[in-house]
Amino acid sequence: MKKSLLFLCVLSTVIAWAQDIQYEDFTQFVNPFIGTKKMGHTFPGACVPFGMVQLSPDTDTIGYWEDGHYNNKVYEYCAGYQYDDPTIVGFSHTHFSGTGHSDLGDFLIMPIIGELQLNPGTADHPENGYRSSYRKKTETAEPGYYRVKLDEGAISCELTATERVGFHQYHFPETDEAHIILDLIHGIYNYEEKNVWTFIRVENDTLVTGYRQTSGWARTRTVYFAMVFSKPVKSYGHKKYDESVYRGFYRKFDEEENFPEMAGRKIRAHFDFKIEEHESLQVKFALSAVSTEGALKNLQAEIPHWNFIKIRQEAKYKWNKELSKINVETIIPDDKVVFYTALYHAFISPIIYEDVDGKYRGLDQNIHSSDGFTNYTIFSLWDTYRALHPLFNLVQPQRNNDMVHSMLAHFDQSVHPMLPVWSHYSNENWCMTGYHSVSVISDAINKGIFAGDSESALDACVKTAKYRLFDGLGYYMDLGYVPEDKNGSSVSKTLEYAYDDWCIAQIAKKAGRDDIYDRFMERSENYKNVFDPETGFMRPKLSDGTFRKEFDPLDTHGQGFIEGNAWNYGMYVPQYPGALVELYGGKKKFTEMLDRLFTLQLEDKHIEANEDITRDGIIGLYVHGNEPGHHIPYLYNYTGHPEKTQERVRMICNTMYANAPDGLCGNDDCGQMSVWYIFSALGFYPVCPGSDLYALGSPLVKSAEIDLGNGKTLHIKVENQSAENVHVKAVILNGKKLEGPFVGFGDLREGGEMVFRMK
Amino acid sequence: MKKSLLFLCVLSTVIAWAQDIQYEDFTQFVNPFIGTKKMGHTFPGACVPFGMVQLSPDTDTIGYWEDGHYNNKVYEYCAGYQYDDPTIVGFSHTHFSGTGHSDLGDFLIMPIIGELQLNPGTADHPENGYRSSYRKKTETAEPGYYRVKLDEGAISCELTATERVGFHQYHFPETDEAHIILDLIHGIYNYEEKNVWTFIRVENDTLVTGYRQTSGWARTRTVYFAMVFSKPVKSYGHKKYDESVYRGFYRKFDEEENFPEMAGRKIRAHFDFKIEEHESLQVKFALSAVSTEGALKNLQAEIPHWNFIKIRQEAKYKWNKELSKINVETIIPDDKVVFYTALYHAFISPIIYEDVDGKYRGLDQNIHSSDGFTNYTIFSLWDTYRALHPLFNLVQPQRNNDMVHSMLAHFDQSVHPMLPVWSHYSNENWCMTGYHSVSVISDAINKGIFAGDSESALDACVKTAKYRLFDGLGYYMDLGYVPEDKNGSSVSKTLEYAYDDWCIAQIAKKAGRDDIYDRFMERSENYKNVFDPETGFMRPKLSDGTFRKEFDPLDTHGQGFIEGNAWNYGMYVPQYPGALVELYGGKKKFTEMLDRLFTLQLEDKHIEANEDITRDGIIGLYVHGNEPGHHIPYLYNYTGHPEKTQERVRMICNTMYANAPDGLCGNDDCGQMSVWYIFSALGFYPVCPGSDLYALGSPLVKSAEIDLGNGKTLHIKVENQSAENVHVKAVILNGKKLEGPFVGFGDLREGGEMVFRMK
Repeated sequence: MKKSLLFLCVLSTVIAWAQDIQYEDFTQFVNPFIGTKKMGHTFPGACVPFGMVQLSPDTDTIGYWEDGHYNNKVYEYCAGYQYDDPTIVGFSHTHFSGTGHSDLGDFLIMPIIGELQLNPGTADHPENGYRSSYRKKTETAEPGYYRVKLDEGAISCELTATERVGFHQYHFPETDEAHIILDLIHGIYNYEEKNVWTFIRVENDTLVTGYRQTSGWARTRTVYFAMVFSKPVKSYGHKKYDESVYRGFYRKFDEEENFPEMAGRKIRAHFDFKIEEHESLQVKFALSAVSTEGALKNLQAEIPHWNFIKIRQEAKYKWNKELSKINVETIIPDDKVVFYTALYHAFISPIIYEDVDGKYRGLDQNIHSSDGFTNYTIFSLWDTYRALHPLFNLVQPQRNNDMVHSMLAHFDQSVHPMLPVWSHYSNENWCMTGYHSVSVISDAINKGIFAGDSESALDACVKTAKYRLFDGLGYYMDLGYVPEDKNGSSVSKTLEYAYDDWCIAQIAKKAGRDDIYDRFMERSENYKNVFDPETGFMRPKLSDGTFRKEFDPLDTHGQGFIEGNAWNYGMYVPQYPGALVELYGGKKKFTEMLDRLFTLQLEDKHIEANEDITRDGIIGLYVHGNEPGHHIPYLYNYTGHPEKTQERVRMICNTMYANAPDGLCGNDDCGQMSVWYIFSALGFYPVCPGSDLYALGSPLVKSAEIDLGNGKTLHIKVENQSAENVHVKAVILNGKKLEGPFVGFGDLREGGEMVFRMK
Repeated sequence: MKKSLLFLCVLSTVIAWAQDIQYEDFTQFVNPFIGTKKMGHTFPGACVPFGMVQLSPDTDTIGYWEDGHYNNKVYEYCAGYQYDDPTIVGFSHTHFSGTGHSDLGDFLIMPIIGELQLNPGTADHPENGYRSSYRKKTETAEPGYYRVKLDEGAISCELTATERVGFHQYHFPETDEAHIILDLIHGIYNYEEKNVWTFIRVENDTLVTGYRQTSGWARTRTVYFAMVFSKPVKSYGHKKYDESVYRGFYRKFDEEENFPEMAGRKIRAHFDFKIEEHESLQVKFALSAVSTEGALKNLQAEIPHWNFIKIRQEAKYKWNKELSKINVETIIPDDKVVFYTALYHAFISPIIYEDVDGKYRGLDQNIHSSDGFTNYTIFSLWDTYRALHPLFNLVQPQRNNDMVHSMLAHFDQSVHPMLPVWSHYSNENWCMTGYHSVSVISDAINKGIFAGDSESALDACVKTAKYRLFDGLGYYMDLGYVPEDKNGSSVSKTLEYAYDDWCIAQIAKKAGRDDIYDRFMERSENYKNVFDPETGFMRPKLSDGTFRKEFDPLDTHGQGFIEGNAWNYGMYVPQYPGALVELYGGKKKFTEMLDRLFTLQLEDKHIEANEDITRDGIIGLYVHGNEPGHHIPYLYNYTGHPEKTQERVRMICNTMYANAPDGLCGNDDCGQMSVWYIFSALGFYPVCPGSDLYALGSPLVKSAEIDLGNGKTLHIKVENQSAENVHVKAVILNGKKLEGPFVGFGDLREGGEMVFRMK
């Protein structure tokens, strides 16, 4: 870039920033600590919307070696952070937001002073390592910015980020012995053998590159980095914690001190500095999944200077730009914080997964170029197809189009052939059931968001749905259901495959492929095959065609369901809610069943069996802390009792979400939990992604302006709104009263005004 | 490529082949088994000149797990093969030729029938694994072709290759149970933890891709492959021999059978086929250091068909093209076989190390394009700067130019900053002493072979020679010698650094950089600093400036020399042979010393201490089986006794080389041992690469035509040649009698006729 051009770019950024000042600052309503306590699994660190770098303090991690034994803290540390923890291990650059499984936590940086410590130490004894205690009052988190003061050495730490670069700023006291620890062993879900290979290359006295290759949840994963310091390194070195030997060193070099190529399975490096009075040390840390060359390009493109405040401001600007897409007023102030924090969490992942030049590592581990789209990764699809991607269709249409393209690229690069199930970082981890990319694709195509080749998309969906090797799918194709004796969680799978079939049929219909449409509409009826009229429940069936004898509809384990039971998971027929009601005995009976669901108290043993949620996430048998039932509160709309939907939705909004570290009642799951709130607070919810219809609920907001990304704005006004007035008397869309408790995406997409009249 | 174009290409190949028929077939004089017994460390398998694929049978490997203990067979199996071994483990695709250290042995393929065996078994008990015994008479090796019949299953195996693709042809008996084993654990220098990660991806029923990542001699090395079968795989699977777990499989797939993504630290895969009567199974196996995509490109570009015979013929054609560059007649037929096998071994490495599109993995592990040159790797420079690269300047000028460019690219990509010392596969293994790239570069520049930026080349050499961290170089720069108490093998290092300094000075002189010239000419005198006038030997000196008290000039260990002693290594001052003679007391005294060197008998304990050589490789104290003394027989030329050089050279040619499996008296060392023979048989030798002068010896050939690669031919005629007539009466170059026992490269380069008159 020529200097004059650079100047113009900088100028335009400044102007854009100045223009922005006239807008409201929505970042002030975000509390990144929501969900960082108990099971929310969010992280408080610095990132920009959909950024690859998510630079956040780790207070502990899942599965690390502690005092000679293996500390297996499953779940609690999926995002590396628990709000009440008294110590910080350091700041790592990659995190999942809200997941119930884990990985990442790459490239932990920790500043220390005095004697060099290369062991992290433990939470109980931070003094035995580089870990430090900290006081809660020194900790601040805003969108794109995090700050804390470490007790050890009184080091003030500030973090900010761009899409691909983390920016650290450390204020040390004056010292001859300041160290930056780069721990390549540290990681989340860091079972002892997760590290495959790690490499550090000191290019010169301020630039360091390298990579970390792991086999954890992602089986074959490599992340490259380029790190620069704001002042020259005085000395450096590393220690190896494995048996790997670099035979070339024999008689040639001292490997541990100032040798610029450090490598091994398990290494921790240190970089030593002399710090003057009032001097701060800055570290820029860029990531790439392609190469160190890619990381360096990302670094140079995104942060070509040392102006920390500017990057912090730009991060804030980027967040404001995204958060301002929905402008709400709420009844009470805390609801506004809950709302914008939910929106913040919704815009953290999927992450942009390509270098600034568009190169990315594909599922085939080869390097590809994202011509015509931006490549994304981290697709927690069993969670996010429900509401997150539908929300993107509403307010992030371009990004959702890119995400669909990313899924199709995954398919092209897959050997299976399948669309993503749960994929991250050029890997498929096959987590949970179904293949709900087809729902996301169907929803995007049917809502007109996908700008691409629909026929290829249809082909990818059909091939995915015919891959017999996958998870009982062969049985499903032969028998019309997954037999429990052949493949567990069989009822969940049967129900979800049937819904996915319906999604594929909708794509086929739009493409005019009647043959495919007919075949998949037929498959979409398979949910009936696991319904047992005798007990009135969905129930595991065996390969001989009989239902399995042992059956406890309250139990969540070994009953044919995954993370649910026959009561709540059994209500999963989103494609045919009307038929579901009939199957369960008609509107009256199903209404009673829903009533029982929300009031019957689970015994303790059943609550404990629900992973990922706190007791607060449960209302009767309804488990809001997990996803399978997220559509259930809206099912009253199909039994002639929309007022009960309105009551339940408002109740859940008020009791299951709060402006507090434990303000999420279960894993946020890459935003799905948060987006349930966003939709519900706005007054509608996508019960069946792939269809045009939203079910109406009871809005929590007083008003909302939604920027639809197509130049149009939808204004939501709620008349007579109050905490008590939860029932909706009428909904008027652009002057026309809606007939039932439903509204079409197509209607909303044109913008205008939707008025809820409350009573 | 359009079909018509393809036809033309094929046609032109055929025509080229037909044209070639008029030439003599030099491949008939090559015996690839020479050096495969004892310490030659050559391999008999199939490769093309400088090809990356060197597809050869492994009869055993260094360091493998056998019967519950670790079988550490050092040295013997550097090339994976010993002639007398009764069993073959399989056929792997990468090998060093003649080295004394090892690595490689990637991607072992073995055909078996009947019950599936995934363990290799042992040499003593091949029946416990997939290994097979074989009869020697079924084994044939020619340049580019290898054949053997395995006893187990009576499977006939044929191998051929292109630069980047191995081609296997297996003739099974009719069977429902034929298996191709792909062993990713197998490797040479395969210490238990060498494997870092391996990956196999079954793309479809005939195509398999993947990679093997190791940390052996090369610390961080990955080789990718693409393998195709001539018929569809019936079924496949793998077994894992490590603890790595792919957590994604939980409840989803049966990982071991027909699952198309196999990965782990240690895996062996099998591919199962039904074989009809008279049907043979073919396997094409392409390599790349870039990616599986690169391997596939290489495969498609180099072998787009299934015509095994054609590839075998093309390999023969390629060898003939290279071997025909020197056309000799010898006194006895076996000498011709020794000569052409030496030439064959000279043209095996360095290997072409880039994909067909010019992409290669650089030392920085990033992917580069070799714009303007072809990238090579495997630089065993402590060996090959002596004669191999000088031979390339004579008959492979274009390739040597490319090799120098490859070394400069290595420098650009290195973090150290250093030119290659001993490098292979994007890694520096730092083996042996000195940094003799500077000799190769100096020789290429001063002989006008290097077509590139000489200033950059000089800069790279100077920076290399000033890298204080490297191997005692800081001491050398400060003290003028390497002190033995600070850094071992100090005399070898001092002598070699001084020679390297002289080489750099010659580049500086040519570039008109007098400042650098003066500085490095001064450094080049440092050899004097380790000469002890009292004992009359080069001798280890301490950092206090005194010689170390303990000193045994016959001992090869701990005496300041690496792989040599004060007697033979102490004669290493190739840049100033005249001054060397004076240092040792003048011509008469040095002649006597040389005489003693060739006649004094070493005691057994000293012989046993000489690694890498057989007792046959020793003449008195002169060790031809290793490199440090290779110039010594020519030193009589500088003492006024060229007739003694002539006698010694002819004696060594006749006693140290033979047309037999044990026909090499020490490691061939990537061709250095062979090229000593080539030069000496032609009548001259490069005592000091970097200078224009060759020392004359006593030609073994009757005549030679050397294609100089510049359109000119040098005809060597030896008059009155016989086994007895070893003395040279006169040498007439283009009608002009040479004054002394030396000839200039510049004179030979013009072609014409050089007549040796023997007496």
